[in-house]
Amino acid sequence: MSASAITDLSRLCVHTATTKPWSLSIAAREYARAGIKGITVWRDALAALGPKESGNVCRAEGLEIVSLCRGGFFPHVDQAGKTAALDDNRRAIDEAAALGAPLIVLVCGAHPSLSLETSRKQIVEGIAEVLPYAHERGIKLGIEPLHPMYAGDRSAVNTLRQANDMCDALKSPYVGVALDVYHLWWDPELREQTLRCGKSGYLFAFHVCDWRTPTRDLLLDRAIMGDGCINIPEIRGWVEEAGFKGFNEVEIFSTEYWSGDQSPYLQKIVDAYRKHV
Amino acid sequence: MSASAITDLSRLCVHTATTKPWSLSIAAREYARAGIKGITVWRDALAALGPKESGNVCRAEGLEIVSLCRGGFFPHVDQAGKTAALDDNRRAIDEAAALGAPLIVLVCGAHPSLSLETSRKQIVEGIAEVLPYAHERGIKLGIEPLHPMYAGDRSAVNTLRQANDMCDALKSPYVGVALDVYHLWWDPELREQTLRCGKSGYLFAFHVCDWRTPTRDLLLDRAIMGDGCINIPEIRGWVEEAGFKGFNEVEIFSTEYWSGDQSPYLQKIVDAYRKHV
Repeated sequence: MSASAITDLSRLCVHTATTKPWSLSIAAREYARAGIKGITVWRDALAALGPKESGNVCRAEGLEIVSLCRGGFFPHVDQAGKTAALDDNRRAIDEAAALGAPLIVLVCGAHPSLSLETSRKQIVEGIAEVLPYAHERGIKLGIEPLHPMYAGDRSAVNTLRQANDMCDALKSPYVGVALDVYHLWWDPELREQTLRCGKSGYLFAFHVCDWRTPTRDLLLDRAIMGDGCINIPEIRGWVEEAGFKGFNEVEIFSTEYWSGDQSPYLQKIVDAYRKHV
Repeated sequence: MSASAITDLSRLCVHTATTKPWSLSIAAREYARAGIKGITVWRDALAALGPKESGNVCRAEGLEIVSLCRGGFFPHVDQAGKTAALDDNRRAIDEAAALGAPLIVLVCGAHPSLSLETSRKQIVEGIAEVLPYAHERGIKLGIEPLHPMYAGDRSAVNTLRQANDMCDALKSPYVGVALDVYHLWWDPELREQTLRCGKSGYLFAFHVCDWRTPTRDLLLDRAIMGDGCINIPEIRGWVEEAGFKGFNEVEIFSTEYWSGDQSPYLQKIVDAYRKHV
């Protein structure tokens, strides 16, 4: 199944980290002016106004708050590290509740001294630990599989199958998956596991950007959709075949784009969304 | 099964790219002096002496030539590109024969304008095309799965399962796999697919180095064994459980190490080999 063409911006969301030089207030205003309908908020962006007022600013611009990014980083070699991570995740849940975000995206973590299996075990234990707190506040948790190039230190969840398996283990309507094409486009099981994800009710979020060739930096060289090698419409087709009806969320981390004027860059994103998502 | 401890250097091979500033003659002399028994030769290193004399130099130092690196890069959007790649692979086979290397390692290629499936199809077709030429000259071809961070432009073969599947499709004693811990340490099926690889007779080469956290460059920031997060002895255990009896080959690409004195760096590699492989 191929995706139907994008005809309007009603499902376009932008992550504030995409336009990192802008404050949350400016981002909200500029997103709304560009016709964007959803916003995901980086936790750092909450500092200026606090979560509650940040939420009011977004809603005043007519934006739907899609998620708060990010929680996670559960694996640690000692109990103190684990406890600090759980505390930080509870704080993120409080912030999401105050902001009015229904979902926290989890960058689950990995520790170079731990095996990937141990890190994954600690991730499941960590999510299970904070889950009641999230449930009580009505906040969902989205496990985001990260590209294997981050397996050493950012996430031991590197395939969609692994994230789906964790959701199976945790069995809660408050635990699901954030599927990012940047992290998963190479995954040989992507179509099959996307269908499993959606049909199991796990597909909470869909993130888009592009993979530049050659990529010059492991973290901060993501490309605007259409400027890389990812077949985004094909993956969106699978996501929609799996029943997803949420936002198509643009998340671009890019030193190059952050160094320039954010307004034409945002317009490029909107144009690329119509053509290449 | 865990690997038995390394007690001597009889199975230590070093890839000349590891000590890139050295000419082949110097590398061969210094490797031999350090007690290293095997050498893999980067094609660039053949330029000074030509393949035949390069082989003589290595053998005169008592080194076993393990492989020539590299062939591959089969996928292209046009026939001219494909034909040029096939010609280049035939040249590499001639060079391996002249050098006296029994194996060519294949970095199979990927093209950002082609889907990964199409690239993989072209890889299998390309290997099938040059296979008779390799067979006639007694040269084996080793498919090296590359880390998914290279899927856009260097290789569409990113898991060991994919490489094993290609070997199944090509059904030749001259087609197998080069298994590099740097590329595959994150692979969730690594143990199972290593056993399949060895037991099917596909396991032609085993490469080691380490994954630095954080990694600062996508290509040239590999670490010496023990300086990263890969459990190399565990993977070597699987490789040996699968029946592999060949060299443990060190392949480090590192701007940092290349910028310094190569002699103490080579000694560090030898010491790390005893402790961390």
